[in-house]
Amino acid sequence: MILVLSPDATPEQVEHILDHVRQSGFTPFPIKGEFRTIIGAIGDDTNPAAESFRVLPGIEQVLQILKPFKLASREFHKADTIVQVGRTKIGGGHFAVIAGPCAVESEELLDAVAARVKKAGANLLRGGAFKPRTSPYSFQGLGEEGLQILRQVGDRYQLPVVTEVMDTRHVELVDRYADMLQIGARNMQNFELLKEVGLTNKPVLLKRGMSATVKDLLMSAEYVLSSGNQQVVLCERGVRSFEDSTRNMLDLAAVPNIKGQSHLPVIVDPSHATGRPDLIPPLARAAVAAGADGIHVEVHSCPEKALSDGPQALLPDQFDVLMNDIRRMVEFFQKSLT
Amino acid sequence: MILVLSPDATPEQVEHILDHVRQSGFTPFPIKGEFRTIIGAIGDDTNPAAESFRVLPGIEQVLQILKPFKLASREFHKADTIVQVGRTKIGGGHFAVIAGPCAVESEELLDAVAARVKKAGANLLRGGAFKPRTSPYSFQGLGEEGLQILRQVGDRYQLPVVTEVMDTRHVELVDRYADMLQIGARNMQNFELLKEVGLTNKPVLLKRGMSATVKDLLMSAEYVLSSGNQQVVLCERGVRSFEDSTRNMLDLAAVPNIKGQSHLPVIVDPSHATGRPDLIPPLARAAVAAGADGIHVEVHSCPEKALSDGPQALLPDQFDVLMNDIRRMVEFFQKSLT
Amino acid sequence: MILVLSPDATPEQVEHILDHVRQSGFTPFPIKGEFRTIIGAIGDDTNPAAESFRVLPGIEQVLQILKPFKLASREFHKADTIVQVGRTKIGGGHFAVIAGPCAVESEELLDAVAARVKKAGANLLRGGAFKPRTSPYSFQGLGEEGLQILRQVGDRYQLPVVTEVMDTRHVELVDRYADMLQIGARNMQNFELLKEVGLTNKPVLLKRGMSATVKDLLMSAEYVLSSGNQQVVLCERGVRSFEDSTRNMLDLAAVPNIKGQSHLPVIVDPSHATGRPDLIPPLARAAVAAGADGIHVEVHSCPEKALSDGPQALLPDQFDVLMNDIRRMVEFFQKSLT
Amino acid sequence: MILVLSPDATPEQVEHILDHVRQSGFTPFPIKGEFRTIIGAIGDDTNPAAESFRVLPGIEQVLQILKPFKLASREFHKADTIVQVGRTKIGGGHFAVIAGPCAVESEELLDAVAARVKKAGANLLRGGAFKPRTSPYSFQGLGEEGLQILRQVGDRYQLPVVTEVMDTRHVELVDRYADMLQIGARNMQNFELLKEVGLTNKPVLLKRGMSATVKDLLMSAEYVLSSGNQQVVLCERGVRSFEDSTRNMLDLAAVPNIKGQSHLPVIVDPSHATGRPDLIPPLARAAVAAGADGIHVEVHSCPEKALSDGPQALLPDQFDVLMNDIRRMVEFFQKSLT
Repeated sequence: MILVLSPDATPEQVEHILDHVRQSGFTPFPIKGEFRTIIGAIGDDTNPAAESFRVLPGIEQVLQILKPFKLASREFHKADTIVQVGRTKIGGGHFAVIAGPCAVESEELLDAVAARVKKAGANLLRGGAFKPRTSPYSFQGLGEEGLQILRQVGDRYQLPVVTEVMDTRHVELVDRYADMLQIGARNMQNFELLKEVGLTNKPVLLKRGMSATVKDLLMSAEYVLSSGNQQVVLCERGVRSFEDSTRNMLDLAAVPNIKGQSHLPVIVDPSHATGRPDLIPPLARAAVAAGADGIHVEVHSCPEKALSDGPQALLPDQFDVLMNDIRRMVEFFQKSLT
Repeated sequence: MILVLSPDATPEQVEHILDHVRQSGFTPFPIKGEFRTIIGAIGDDTNPAAESFRVLPGIEQVLQILKPFKLASREFHKADTIVQVGRTKIGGGHFAVIAGPCAVESEELLDAVAARVKKAGANLLRGGAFKPRTSPYSFQGLGEEGLQILRQVGDRYQLPVVTEVMDTRHVELVDRYADMLQIGARNMQNFELLKEVGLTNKPVLLKRGMSATVKDLLMSAEYVLSSGNQQVVLCERGVRSFEDSTRNMLDLAAVPNIKGQSHLPVIVDPSHATGRPDLIPPLARAAVAAGADGIHVEVHSCPEKALSDGPQALLPDQFDVLMNDIRRMVEFFQKSLT
Repeated sequence: MILVLSPDATPEQVEHILDHVRQSGFTPFPIKGEFRTIIGAIGDDTNPAAESFRVLPGIEQVLQILKPFKLASREFHKADTIVQVGRTKIGGGHFAVIAGPCAVESEELLDAVAARVKKAGANLLRGGAFKPRTSPYSFQGLGEEGLQILRQVGDRYQLPVVTEVMDTRHVELVDRYADMLQIGARNMQNFELLKEVGLTNKPVLLKRGMSATVKDLLMSAEYVLSSGNQQVVLCERGVRSFEDSTRNMLDLAAVPNIKGQSHLPVIVDPSHATGRPDLIPPLARAAVAAGADGIHVEVHSCPEKALSDGPQALLPDQFDVLMNDIRRMVEFFQKSLT
Repeated sequence: MILVLSPDATPEQVEHILDHVRQSGFTPFPIKGEFRTIIGAIGDDTNPAAESFRVLPGIEQVLQILKPFKLASREFHKADTIVQVGRTKIGGGHFAVIAGPCAVESEELLDAVAARVKKAGANLLRGGAFKPRTSPYSFQGLGEEGLQILRQVGDRYQLPVVTEVMDTRHVELVDRYADMLQIGARNMQNFELLKEVGLTNKPVLLKRGMSATVKDLLMSAEYVLSSGNQQVVLCERGVRSFEDSTRNMLDLAAVPNIKGQSHLPVIVDPSHATGRPDLIPPLARAAVAAGADGIHVEVHSCPEKALSDGPQALLPDQFDVLMNDIRRMVEFFQKSLT
């Protein structure tokens, strides 16, 4: 940690700061510049006392040097983590294709989509039973009935299933049916929920919040990891921006950015990132090229009847075309779809 | 709702769209322009079927005309809502000053702060017992012990108390101790939590999410209102932006913007918005001038020992000075601090 | 400047870095931490060689400590700068009200507006002769004819006039007619234009760019100041954000934020910030309360005939009402409207 | 255009609006809904009178249906435009690699870089002679001397040259030396400059502004096109965001988004988008996969001596590795590097 003193800090203030640094368990190294003094404070940056430095009289800025996450860090764990969901692997050269409708609406519809995405090459089935909807008047999901349908259809097509959990009270229930627990963007900083899924032994798909920095996302992963669950897959799904012709702004740089500093797999969701079927295929291809460990794509057999988020889904025929590209690109980049 | 057709929509597509509009319970009014056809679809915009229009072949854009919230709307409820918390009123000319430390750390510290903010003129006491912290290694709050302290100190100084609830499982517990339940920015779209506090009979302080639009905030309020709880106070606390010299960007325009379209009271939190004690007083004054129904300010008796968010708190002496200004301004704008 | 070395920097790299620091004219102070070495580099941060440090092998981060602006800084010039435009003073307790139509459209229209804003208490007249329009098909301004009209009408009502200059080739022309030269948001980083107005002896009104940080704005002011012109007034006019119900997001915190670190006057433009006449009065009042040195408001006598930006203008009657509030608030804050 | 009336619009207001619509040259089609009346106004949306509708009493919202750009639109020009710069083609299957240092610093340095990028497969040479720098104290470029060096070195290696022009007064000069004129992000809405380069017969490389929407970018292209110059290449180079670990946020969705609605070629600049050499190669690959018509990469032979933006440049050896990938990917996507 580095403390930058204000240009008019008095000698008494400097003394008080040095004392406080020592009392908090850091070793201070003051450097006197022409305009300002800076103090290097050697010690554990995750020490909560560090936060209090900013308010000491005479301090202008406190700069944290060390990364605030540990278990999620590549410094802590050099090799790529490979997360296993059923028979599907994610990370370390294994590319995941998670596909399915936004919401589980009926067994018939889910079966129709699952048959098609399985055939096209997807290796994980998604579908929401609990849906976070902006409006209380929108369809909120089928709940446990949706979970049952998802489980049955997943088993039928030998596709492990992933579904969102939105409430700490539902974790046990969702855990009973799903192979992977999804934390949605709106709950990325629902810390109680993160702790709770961290106590299960199911892999977690953690989506980036709409205004979360890469560091925030890794800190949220740290909540799950520090609760004991090491199987976390991160998902870039676009962030809020001023651009109004797409639903969100896909931050594809986050993929290599995260992979440089963390061992966790990172996948990309071009469906939620853009909300536009015409943009999903080029961005899915770009995700492979940027080094992602998978994609997360919404597919619906008849989007005009979808009860939730239909417009951002591909039709099965469009998904077939996309998978032809993805298969070739995964091969091009010497990864495998298994 | 208005459907804008693409310039190359075929007559068959137009026919299919008109059918679908009718089947969904809307009455279509097509208008043929030189370049494009548009269709006015008269009916209930909150009809979930409306979402499906966007994916019909031949459709380029779907424009929603009606506001998606009802109970929160001024069209629904013309007069300003006045929310009562203990003996304190918020809204309709009543100005609330919510003050206190970020977290309840000990009875001694809270008592010291409460004594000072009461004397300075605050009419509500805040303090966190459950704290949403970016890092799992930071202080997470005292839990029920914190609630007990808050209750006792609030009673001692005759200040109604407000505190954050972060987990559906804690709503009952927090409800037992608090006079007002706070939903933090990170949980603004934790819809299960919104429904749960909507089932209590305690007033709710709903903070704007870091990347929530004004419409999103009102939709979240709609969750609480439609669950049966009409006592909601909204709080502008800054949004994420590219500006890196303040913690967030205070969107003060949100105050008159919300008050024009909703009857709910709106307060402003300059502490979280800026993270800088030097900016809190001018922005608190600006909030009064912009028409806010209250302010929410962190006060700590010794911020350098604060376990949570100390740096953004005012010292009691600074709060005294601020309250002198606020009192005069509230009078200037012919409101009352009761 | 502080150099943070990567945890696996080799001793050779450290040596190379120390050499490079010395050769660039800095004095290095290395501090060895448990995980990382940091090097304090004492010297002139505005030394362009400093930039090259970031690419040295073994360097992870370079932290600049000193502010990159000098002439704009309060460290350099403690007292508030008072900018004088004709007989109107801005800053240091003098509050400016700049009002007028977006564009000069005809002498008749400008005269009508000028008569009203003068009577209501404005002390500067604005009007665009050269207009930056997003579309090449929109009205681009009357050019020199507009400047002549502005000059005549300003003289008639004894209001000094401010108008935008968009092209280095027009600086001489605009300088001939105007009392104050405005640099618009879109040209805030048109550095050649900044240098050119820096060579005139007319006060400059510098508007913040749509995605400029406070630091960027001060660096642009530094361009004007370092060209020799010390009369710069800064203007906060909203930045781009995800909020789609207002044209921009007014960053009112920028006012006290800038005034804390710079001696230059800061005014606020609620017209461009919101694009909504209903939000202009509350935000103009808030600007006074936040410590602004003036406001910049569009007024038009018949906005539905305005050729440019009519919708964000107040009608003269609305401006009268606003000025009643502003006059009382300026007095309340012990400033003067002269 | 569609006019949404407010729920309490009076019959007189409706009549006044209908009159005004007709007088402005539009044909009104009113539709009476349950809650609100809407009026379809058929006519030319680029008609400047359209703007005035928003301020009519009784109007709540004005929705523009038609795209505000014409010459840049794919509706106007179906086939991909191929821009030719010297012997290099951009667009329509031709992939451009623009490489070179940020600034022209000396003939020796530029020659060293040019030799390497030519050998690696770049087909255009870039280098700044006029540099837009945030600080007036940073290196501002060599001016005409830089242009001469760029011309000579380009000719020596048979690489057409592209360089930035920042001032209308320099257009003629830069035109004399360069094969392609670059408009930088900061000048994307410097409309006088756009008109001026629109009068030359040199291809223009137009970079997206830091907070420009895709529509804004296309409107700026429209300025150049409507001045008579049809040879415009657009460049996505990242936008401002809250993410602080990269210099900007690359909006890769802009590539297919623009190409869907415009015939103009689009290239991607991962150097300015990220400011981090480790992220340039994955994002350059992603750009190819997303359908870009080229990339723009900074290369420097010794970044630690670069006078401008060194840290975001690749070393020639890194560029060699990148070009191996790019060449294979361009082939994979059946485009050609000529």
